[in-house]
Amino acid sequence: MIGFRALHSRNERATLRPYNRAVLVSEIGEFGLIQLLAREFGLEYPPARGVSQPGLQVGLGDDAVVTDRRDGSLIWTTDTMVENVHFLIDPAPSWHDIGWKALATNLSDIAAMGGTPHLALVTLCLPPDFQVEDAVALYGGLHECAEAFGVTLGGGDIVGAPVFSITIALSGWAEAEPDGSAAVLTRGAAQPGDVVAVSGTIGDAVAGLLLAREGRDFKTKSEQHLRAAMDRPQPRVALGLEAVRAGLRCGIDISDGLVQDLGHVATASGVGIRVDAVRVPSSAALREVFPAEAFGLAISGGQDYELLLIGPRATVEALMDASETPMTEIGDVYRTDTPHVAVVDEAGREIPLAHGGWDHFKPS
Amino acid sequence: MIGFRALHSRNERATLRPYNRAVLVSEIGEFGLIQLLAREFGLEYPPARGVSQPGLQVGLGDDAVVTDRRDGSLIWTTDTMVENVHFLIDPAPSWHDIGWKALATNLSDIAAMGGTPHLALVTLCLPPDFQVEDAVALYGGLHECAEAFGVTLGGGDIVGAPVFSITIALSGWAEAEPDGSAAVLTRGAAQPGDVVAVSGTIGDAVAGLLLAREGRDFKTKSEQHLRAAMDRPQPRVALGLEAVRAGLRCGIDISDGLVQDLGHVATASGVGIRVDAVRVPSSAALREVFPAEAFGLAISGGQDYELLLIGPRATVEALMDASETPMTEIGDVYRTDTPHVAVVDEAGREIPLAHGGWDHFKPS
Repeated sequence: MIGFRALHSRNERATLRPYNRAVLVSEIGEFGLIQLLAREFGLEYPPARGVSQPGLQVGLGDDAVVTDRRDGSLIWTTDTMVENVHFLIDPAPSWHDIGWKALATNLSDIAAMGGTPHLALVTLCLPPDFQVEDAVALYGGLHECAEAFGVTLGGGDIVGAPVFSITIALSGWAEAEPDGSAAVLTRGAAQPGDVVAVSGTIGDAVAGLLLAREGRDFKTKSEQHLRAAMDRPQPRVALGLEAVRAGLRCGIDISDGLVQDLGHVATASGVGIRVDAVRVPSSAALREVFPAEAFGLAISGGQDYELLLIGPRATVEALMDASETPMTEIGDVYRTDTPHVAVVDEAGREIPLAHGGWDHFKPS
Repeated sequence: MIGFRALHSRNERATLRPYNRAVLVSEIGEFGLIQLLAREFGLEYPPARGVSQPGLQVGLGDDAVVTDRRDGSLIWTTDTMVENVHFLIDPAPSWHDIGWKALATNLSDIAAMGGTPHLALVTLCLPPDFQVEDAVALYGGLHECAEAFGVTLGGGDIVGAPVFSITIALSGWAEAEPDGSAAVLTRGAAQPGDVVAVSGTIGDAVAGLLLAREGRDFKTKSEQHLRAAMDRPQPRVALGLEAVRAGLRCGIDISDGLVQDLGHVATASGVGIRVDAVRVPSSAALREVFPAEAFGLAISGGQDYELLLIGPRATVEALMDASETPMTEIGDVYRTDTPHVAVVDEAGREIPLAHGGWDHFKPS
């Protein structure tokens, strides 16, 4: 249901008190919290009769939300962040940034399909001692991200739980092929002879996480840049859509790490992928703060949410010329019986990699 | 993303071992668990190139799922169940039933809008010591419910967390008005003069919960009936759709309790609602097991997931004649300046109610 229930409280029908720094969600209860959040962000709750949200025929406060009519194929994804699993508690990102990132990671999945984001439902699991001002800050980050990418926040569910988590389900719409089927970027559409391009620079997010773990105070601009890459990723929604419209049909976002995510493409497409080590783009900030480790971080670090786009050279290069998003060609696709990702040096020799991905990354 | 990540394990790429009663999800890891669940339910993971699921153009194993093309207004809801918050751990329902109920409660929200359910995304938060066989049982319940109601399970997310929870986001499609707008059942469409009907019988689910809390062994058929009402609710999907097609536009499901849920309708519609106490339908099992409390349980107990349908008498009665779902007319809607739900006795006197709803229910 859209209307948030089961945050246990004896005070569920209490009038809304002005909140201050000390108020816990268990004090104002589920109903009070929804009302406060709705008002904070310009909505009435419960909604007056006949009042709805833009883009919705039925909004917050009914059994479900109902969208405007639309014709097409739906793209749908969901992602969860759990405290101490998906983000550090100490030092914690701001609740505003946690809200931003929770939506941004879902947006990156829609971007990686080349779709147009549409509607998000948010489920918050809140411990009873969660502070109301933190809930407001979290929703502030969600709203900022939703506005930046044209997403309608359609309500969701708020429940009591022992630990904090946020789950977002996000829908989008797919472009259409001439025959009406969905035109999307999948992992399984790479062909031998294709080239591989990546947006932006990679490795910054994991570098920001390493600095946070080391207890850095993020005084320099470069350190702040790396922390921002971790806490406020910028999903490549515009680029994904441009890629589909340009005729590309293969893509993935870098959530686990360059090599691991290219591995998903290699497996799904039944191909080999060769990456030229010297062409992997890293930021000046990464090279300044981690001069020795920059390359390793770039090829193995996750959570950058850049896009990998794979297709015929002419199509990829036309997209690179036309798009405002910076992109770098980093490799190509070859025929093989055993799907594989090879990172090669300037002499064409494969560089041995112990581990490719985010989960397994160990700082040396 | 659809492909399940961040269940922390060092063994994520391990080959799938035959599981037995002792295997924990942390042993086979995220990838192993997905592969096992997919195979258990007839899907290949990662999917072979070009293979997809019925109704989906892109299924499990990409950044997101993509549906077949369709024209209409989308209905969208989400619901979460957290262990020890939304269901008892001791005595626990079976994991199969927890899977069933997690989807059934979402289906009830689609039913309460009068829509046709379509696609579900499932997020599981699993503690590391969660047993693989329990995950398989949980998915068994999900699949059984999905098959019973024509829902496509489109994947989701599996993450590590300190406590078990399951979050489902479910989409459906709305019927259309002649002008193309969505034809749905909302809480705000009750009109003075309308009658109120309820499907099935109510109070059984909370009675089942009370018995479980008392540590009953559920030996009698009546006790088993009450437990089943709690653990395996039957969402009224067919009835919701019939109601919209018959011309009704006001409805809600009973998740919080008859009086509380009618209160949502009264508030959203700006009306008063009168319920005749003697007409509230309760089951023979409820009256047998709780002879003194049956009426109180029926009007205040939640989680029955029956539908309340409100509309012109002729329309409601035509629906009652045509539908296979048993329904009872229990009250009517009157004009008032202060939205209110009145439960009245045979003399028309209002029966005082201390609390109306599920969260506040206290066994006497």
